[in-house]
Amino acid sequence: MRKNSTSWVQTVTLNPPSLKDNTADAERLIQALKSQLNTAAIDIDLGLLKTLPAVLRDSRFTIRCILFREGQRWVLIGIADAKALIPIAGLAVDLGTTRVVLRLLDLITGRTLAESAFDNPQDSIGPDILTRVHFAEKENGLHKLNKLIIGGLNDAIAKLCKSQQITPQQIYALSVAGNTTMSHLFLGLDPRWIIREPYIPVVNTPGALKATELNLEVNPHARVFVFPNIGSYFGGDLIAGILFSEIYKTPQTCILVDVGTNAEVVLGNKNWLIACAGAAGPALEGGVTRMGMTAGPGVIDRITLDSNTLAMNIHTIENLAPRGICGSGLIDLTAQLFLNGMIDIRGKLVSSVCGPKIREIDGLLHLIVVPAEMSATGLDLTISQADLDSLMRSKAAMYTILETLTESVGISPQDLESFYVAGTFGTFINPESAISIGMLPDLPSDRYKPLGNSSLGGATLALQSDQYQQEAGHIRDRITYMELNVNQDFMNRFSAAKFLPHTNPKLFPSVKTLQKNK
Amino acid sequence: MRKNSTSWVQTVTLNPPSLKDNTADAERLIQALKSQLNTAAIDIDLGLLKTLPAVLRDSRFTIRCILFREGQRWVLIGIADAKALIPIAGLAVDLGTTRVVLRLLDLITGRTLAESAFDNPQDSIGPDILTRVHFAEKENGLHKLNKLIIGGLNDAIAKLCKSQQITPQQIYALSVAGNTTMSHLFLGLDPRWIIREPYIPVVNTPGALKATELNLEVNPHARVFVFPNIGSYFGGDLIAGILFSEIYKTPQTCILVDVGTNAEVVLGNKNWLIACAGAAGPALEGGVTRMGMTAGPGVIDRITLDSNTLAMNIHTIENLAPRGICGSGLIDLTAQLFLNGMIDIRGKLVSSVCGPKIREIDGLLHLIVVPAEMSATGLDLTISQADLDSLMRSKAAMYTILETLTESVGISPQDLESFYVAGTFGTFINPESAISIGMLPDLPSDRYKPLGNSSLGGATLALQSDQYQQEAGHIRDRITYMELNVNQDFMNRFSAAKFLPHTNPKLFPSVKTLQKNK
Repeated sequence: MRKNSTSWVQTVTLNPPSLKDNTADAERLIQALKSQLNTAAIDIDLGLLKTLPAVLRDSRFTIRCILFREGQRWVLIGIADAKALIPIAGLAVDLGTTRVVLRLLDLITGRTLAESAFDNPQDSIGPDILTRVHFAEKENGLHKLNKLIIGGLNDAIAKLCKSQQITPQQIYALSVAGNTTMSHLFLGLDPRWIIREPYIPVVNTPGALKATELNLEVNPHARVFVFPNIGSYFGGDLIAGILFSEIYKTPQTCILVDVGTNAEVVLGNKNWLIACAGAAGPALEGGVTRMGMTAGPGVIDRITLDSNTLAMNIHTIENLAPRGICGSGLIDLTAQLFLNGMIDIRGKLVSSVCGPKIREIDGLLHLIVVPAEMSATGLDLTISQADLDSLMRSKAAMYTILETLTESVGISPQDLESFYVAGTFGTFINPESAISIGMLPDLPSDRYKPLGNSSLGGATLALQSDQYQQEAGHIRDRITYMELNVNQDFMNRFSAAKFLPHTNPKLFPSVKTLQKNK
Repeated sequence: MRKNSTSWVQTVTLNPPSLKDNTADAERLIQALKSQLNTAAIDIDLGLLKTLPAVLRDSRFTIRCILFREGQRWVLIGIADAKALIPIAGLAVDLGTTRVVLRLLDLITGRTLAESAFDNPQDSIGPDILTRVHFAEKENGLHKLNKLIIGGLNDAIAKLCKSQQITPQQIYALSVAGNTTMSHLFLGLDPRWIIREPYIPVVNTPGALKATELNLEVNPHARVFVFPNIGSYFGGDLIAGILFSEIYKTPQTCILVDVGTNAEVVLGNKNWLIACAGAAGPALEGGVTRMGMTAGPGVIDRITLDSNTLAMNIHTIENLAPRGICGSGLIDLTAQLFLNGMIDIRGKLVSSVCGPKIREIDGLLHLIVVPAEMSATGLDLTISQADLDSLMRSKAAMYTILETLTESVGISPQDLESFYVAGTFGTFINPESAISIGMLPDLPSDRYKPLGNSSLGGATLALQSDQYQQEAGHIRDRITYMELNVNQDFMNRFSAAKFLPHTNPKLFPSVKTLQKNK
């Protein structure tokens, strides 16, 4: 599926020098590599020149070369006797605000060797971007934030390598995909102007850097490709996601949705790409509902309801006693409540239908999802009217963003050939439920395609071929970023989307069928 | 006389960012510089990105940029508020085996600020290249040699800067011209294969390196241009010399001679360049004759003889009491002895003419040049028959090299439009004397042009315009290096040149006139 153009690792045999051919070692090697790679420019790190004469002669002039692409040039970053077949590794990094995921790759085959993840240690400063940026403005604050993430990475790299019986010195290439602020903190760059109008990053295209410059404890000649950003609110993680989704090269128009704190949406095909981002996520990510949480063991991720008894059929991750609910569970729940008449088209609990499942706590109606005796916490797990109201706003915002973006290019959501949903949310969500509540457009469910960790997927591609790194730059240059203008038109759309599934039920024909079947 | 294409220092005013123009700081600056320099690629060091946001905003988006050329790209290596007009300096280095000369330049005007020189501290390991290369092969030897030269440079740089009331941090660009081995030791590269057949350097074209990588204590973003070499025996010092002489761009064929331990000769014009090197120098450099020494205070640099009294008219550097004789003095002396019949055409002392000036010491004839009572040492300064024999070999070798090289391209030495003589030797030599003994061809004396320190001159040019750095590469690529094949033909020529001025006096018509006038 993935192309693998020029391999990072090349075996080269040189003509040994003679009185008639007394070119220096470095130029002899570069000449051979240039003709092998069919390229014009290859640089060599000074450090490598220090070992080159001995490596060439000990190997009898047949060596293995590790290369990396820096813009228009290739750089030689490793040399070894071709007979010493030690593994050459790469590391793809999804640099999340909350969680950092690492994937160790064999740079020769491009295959995954192992994965690991750790909570972003900057969480000790603050869980969100804004807190961290403000902290970075304090004396030594940026340095501390940078040290936290670099230290966390170095620890995780050491462990990951140990698990594979290799050393961090065998990692020659890294690629890092993170949002714009996380990328800045990783690079040690001042993020203060990212959060202030007119929202300016220090750099859009960091390109390839030396791992040593970043204090990463890997091979001293290793290079780090940092995904480019489009601006303060459209980061390298999304560029990596687009790369992974391949929507930038399909003839048909497709959409990619990444739901985190913000909903980030990219629409396009091989001819054009348009993107926007907006606040839509909190209720979906577990940030708003009292029982909400991110997906994890014991968290409700799927719910169905018996239409006759209204009994809830609950599924938790790892089948443990339930302790909370994640975004996909909440969407399932809301859809089921709506399809069974337990909430009305405004998302309000209908007491007459819910019956004894309803309880009033602190003057607010709650629906008991899991009674105390069945929950892991020993307390009722409930969803309140306020939680439902919050979800209604989130789902309305999401639909409005999708509708605004598609209409801006003159198509309707129904025209989308593929609807990619990234991240954990995409993996767990039941499209039918999301359609039932009018959060996602009413497309045949096979058009909904979960992408998994698309940011990590894109970062992995960038280590499998230099062409993907180039492609990331092209994607960045091609995207039109649409500022979401919260004007009267947007508010009108938003109000219309605050009903279940929508004030215009013709947009959701399948929901009527589902209701009828109940 | 010298062109000054793109200035290293550019003042740029940027449009401040706005919501409609929210490109990142780095890309905003690069875009402006690209259009100002009319270039395609500009890189920025990560370290500069760390200060960029503050510098841009504090300066209200008008900054001074310091740039350096790395191959096809420009690199931004310094930024400052345009209002803060601190000097921006460059340093040209003639990295000699014996002596290192520094020239501090104003990078904006290209003007010289100050110069200094110091004895190469590697002399403590050994005075010659061969001893140092063997030392480099010992445990930690290369590291020690590298540390000696880098330490010496850092000390000299600190002193030189202090004398100009600037800090080493204000030096942003360096250019270094040295022979191939010295350049390797400066870069910390293993020189062992330079001295062993087939004589292979580690690198021919080191290009531009970061000063920090070389442990040079200047601006942390400073770049160091190291002149390329053609091979083990034709170093960057000579490429710099060719650059400085401009023979690579003249329509007429010219020659450049650099006499050190070896005689290095380059012949050519704007269409072609051919070079060779051979052992010719020791006697001329003061390495062989007992009273010989390199030019310095109290050293005899010029001699004339009264044809009637045969009294020597001696000139010493700084007019001090004589303590020795340098190459140019020795050539003057030999010429005068020959023109006055005190030595014969084989270079042998003629006792009957020299009279009381001759003394036999340890079975060898000596000519007293300065009697003990007039010398700085309190001893007679004499020249022995062995010294004269040695000089005869050196002058014969020099002429043979010149003859072989010119004949190889089908011209005679007399066809040379300009005859450049580099170094101290070139500054002090009297062409008429050199012609009289048949060391240099019989050209009108105005064709002989002293170049001074051409290596330092070339290094200076490389800091005045990036075009000269490119030119150095072009010169390197264009030169045909001719191995001096010491075959029967060469030996025949050499034998013919071992007479005064030559076995074929027709080659030196002016000498006959000089002899007649005596």
